[in-house]
Amino acid sequence: MSDFSITRLNASQNDFDGSLASLLAWDDSVDHQVNESVRHILAQVKARGDAAVLEFTEQFDRLKAGSLADLEMSKERLQQSLEAIPQNQRTALEAAAQRIRDYHERQNQQSWHYQEADGTVLGQKVTPLDRAGLYVPGGKAAYPSSVLMNAIPAKVAGVAEVVMVVPTPDGQVNDMVLAAAAIAGVDRVFTIGGAQAVGALAYGTESIPAVDKIVGPGNIYVATAKREVFGTVGIDMIAGPSEILVICDGQTNPDWIAMDLFSQAEHDEQAQSILISPDKAFLDSVEASIRRLLPTMERADIIAESLKSRGAFIQVADLDEAAEVSNRIAPEHLELSVDDPEALLENIRHAGAVFMGRYTAEALGDYCAGPNHVLPTSGTARFSSPLGVYDFQKRSSIIGFSASGADRMGRVASVLARGEGLTAHARSAEYRIKE
Amino acid sequence: MSDFSITRLNASQNDFDGSLASLLAWDDSVDHQVNESVRHILAQVKARGDAAVLEFTEQFDRLKAGSLADLEMSKERLQQSLEAIPQNQRTALEAAAQRIRDYHERQNQQSWHYQEADGTVLGQKVTPLDRAGLYVPGGKAAYPSSVLMNAIPAKVAGVAEVVMVVPTPDGQVNDMVLAAAAIAGVDRVFTIGGAQAVGALAYGTESIPAVDKIVGPGNIYVATAKREVFGTVGIDMIAGPSEILVICDGQTNPDWIAMDLFSQAEHDEQAQSILISPDKAFLDSVEASIRRLLPTMERADIIAESLKSRGAFIQVADLDEAAEVSNRIAPEHLELSVDDPEALLENIRHAGAVFMGRYTAEALGDYCAGPNHVLPTSGTARFSSPLGVYDFQKRSSIIGFSASGADRMGRVASVLARGEGLTAHARSAEYRIKE
Repeated sequence: MSDFSITRLNASQNDFDGSLASLLAWDDSVDHQVNESVRHILAQVKARGDAAVLEFTEQFDRLKAGSLADLEMSKERLQQSLEAIPQNQRTALEAAAQRIRDYHERQNQQSWHYQEADGTVLGQKVTPLDRAGLYVPGGKAAYPSSVLMNAIPAKVAGVAEVVMVVPTPDGQVNDMVLAAAAIAGVDRVFTIGGAQAVGALAYGTESIPAVDKIVGPGNIYVATAKREVFGTVGIDMIAGPSEILVICDGQTNPDWIAMDLFSQAEHDEQAQSILISPDKAFLDSVEASIRRLLPTMERADIIAESLKSRGAFIQVADLDEAAEVSNRIAPEHLELSVDDPEALLENIRHAGAVFMGRYTAEALGDYCAGPNHVLPTSGTARFSSPLGVYDFQKRSSIIGFSASGADRMGRVASVLARGEGLTAHARSAEYRIKE
Repeated sequence: MSDFSITRLNASQNDFDGSLASLLAWDDSVDHQVNESVRHILAQVKARGDAAVLEFTEQFDRLKAGSLADLEMSKERLQQSLEAIPQNQRTALEAAAQRIRDYHERQNQQSWHYQEADGTVLGQKVTPLDRAGLYVPGGKAAYPSSVLMNAIPAKVAGVAEVVMVVPTPDGQVNDMVLAAAAIAGVDRVFTIGGAQAVGALAYGTESIPAVDKIVGPGNIYVATAKREVFGTVGIDMIAGPSEILVICDGQTNPDWIAMDLFSQAEHDEQAQSILISPDKAFLDSVEASIRRLLPTMERADIIAESLKSRGAFIQVADLDEAAEVSNRIAPEHLELSVDDPEALLENIRHAGAVFMGRYTAEALGDYCAGPNHVLPTSGTARFSSPLGVYDFQKRSSIIGFSASGADRMGRVASVLARGEGLTAHARSAEYRIKE
């Protein structure tokens, strides 16, 4: 790995804006072939329900079942998985779940209302979704932490039924994922996946109940299917590759920073790890750490490819400039590995999650800090938020006019409605005006 | 209009579920031609900026300008419009704006954090978007109330810059719209529209700043363009036709109910007005009112077509069943025209806005009640909310581990990361574990 090198940028260079834009550019163009395939699968599931789901499951997961009931996992089965995993894994999952629950409970929203002098009442009623669908990938990318992070906010929000789908290709079951479902309080589990599972959750079938919102990660077929059914149901976000941005003052152990960068890079070749520092010598030290540590990593090839193709070190004049560059990137994960992270946080406007100080490895946030690990990617932290309890609740405006309030406000509405040429609106309001 | 009749359903009939589903069915399939056209416009605006916007504005709005600067309206120009409109309109707009501001201020979210015993800090930081774009349709569907409803929540949220676009076909300017922009505190106004305006806001041009989120209604080209740029920027919702559902115990003046149904039906032929009552004689009375009042309406043709093609009266056994049917519809607007609306509200789980009691005409909510009139349509109230301050703010998770917190939680993260085969994650956490 002695030939390893990482892109270096300097915020003071002339073409920095263009270079940064190229670095961040991410091609999320839609694959026509995938689109066609997904539309076909969705249409079949919508039209033929269980039968179509069974056929696609046999075709794609090589799993033959006589009926959908055979593909449902009972709560007892989940409990068995919980008892089957090693005790240290169970303890860790339960500790993580508890912290995730504690944090998300603070996101619970309350209904409110207020009364005006004339008796008119205005308010906002908060209610949970009736039913949420949780997609969990199968195979090698099966992440029990993802089950906790998606299901717990739904249950905290008060969602009555959380329906999980997880493909088990060739019948391969991941006990840790099922154990996480048991701990998170998932209500029903079907071992189906792909676009057919998304379609089943969106439209409902004879055996699978239609949900109101579908959350959770998946491959390109799953992501495309979610995009297609959006409107029929809600969806969370369509996630891009994972990213980390580390701002370091140069005083953190360079090995720690190198490993933090690795922890994103190991996800896949498209993941993006960026380090910003005002200290050029420190950037050199981290590069040396990377060269030394890379050969010791189990996913060295993925990490190396990710760092080479999408990683970067950005040198800045000072931490103020570091914050400015960070705000332009609006990273999914932002580590402030500096002496006074609170001071630096003041300048941070856009980030999915901020990891404060040298001890807060991003990896802690992935598992057990408490906040959600489903975070806005590709700069969307400029306008969106981590997955939260608020994603499983919705608001209804409450408006109750007293007779005198309707009289007073009916006059205002009448003028505005007539100004817009909507006379039925005006007359409807005028009926409630006192003679 | 003596031949007028409205679809009647009874919740006890055998095929009620299917009939209700047909009634609510709404074809939102995408028009291929429109898609192609919008993609072309967006690509041109992205590549050529101002020049493309000027060309399309000349082509579609028959408005020739030498530069984009000629298409910007100064704050002084907005102020002129405010002074040009009749005093009663200005007073009404100002009264509405004040009530909208008062209500939305209660939606403001606060950042929070808490500290654990070992010094670990967890929190949620709330920040406004930097910049929001507001689309306002031109021509006959120019609604000043829409400017207030979209711009005020953004300003209450703390958005630094609200950029409004409004087409002025053939140079036709709507003073009431500009006056509303002045009252709402809109920062910049460009007289451009269509997909080219959406593209300019999403990508930015030499003269038009890129925004973080685009809100506001528009025609099929605007809606398609918003859908296309979603991801580059946030968008509000893609609205379907407007709907009202009235639940009445039979004791409200049938003329009032008829006019409330008209007030949605007059929007367009696709709008949907539904009345639910346990009282068959009352349904007959409202139908008689409709027959009598319809010929007196300025938009009689639109109203008649809307009621015939998409309207319905649904007879139920009692108010409990009315609530149940309403929850399946998840209406945009729900009027509870009954004696005890609070009791009925207990059973309502899904609705964009609820209008309580006989005096609360839906039209009041469109203009000046205070809550937003941008509401989820087509059953999406099952999982989404009215436009609000929360749409112009986003959250960042804050995670700050103390050295001893990182030690304790690093052990948990290590077990889970190794369980998922992510060893860089594990080692990054393990570096912070005490020896």
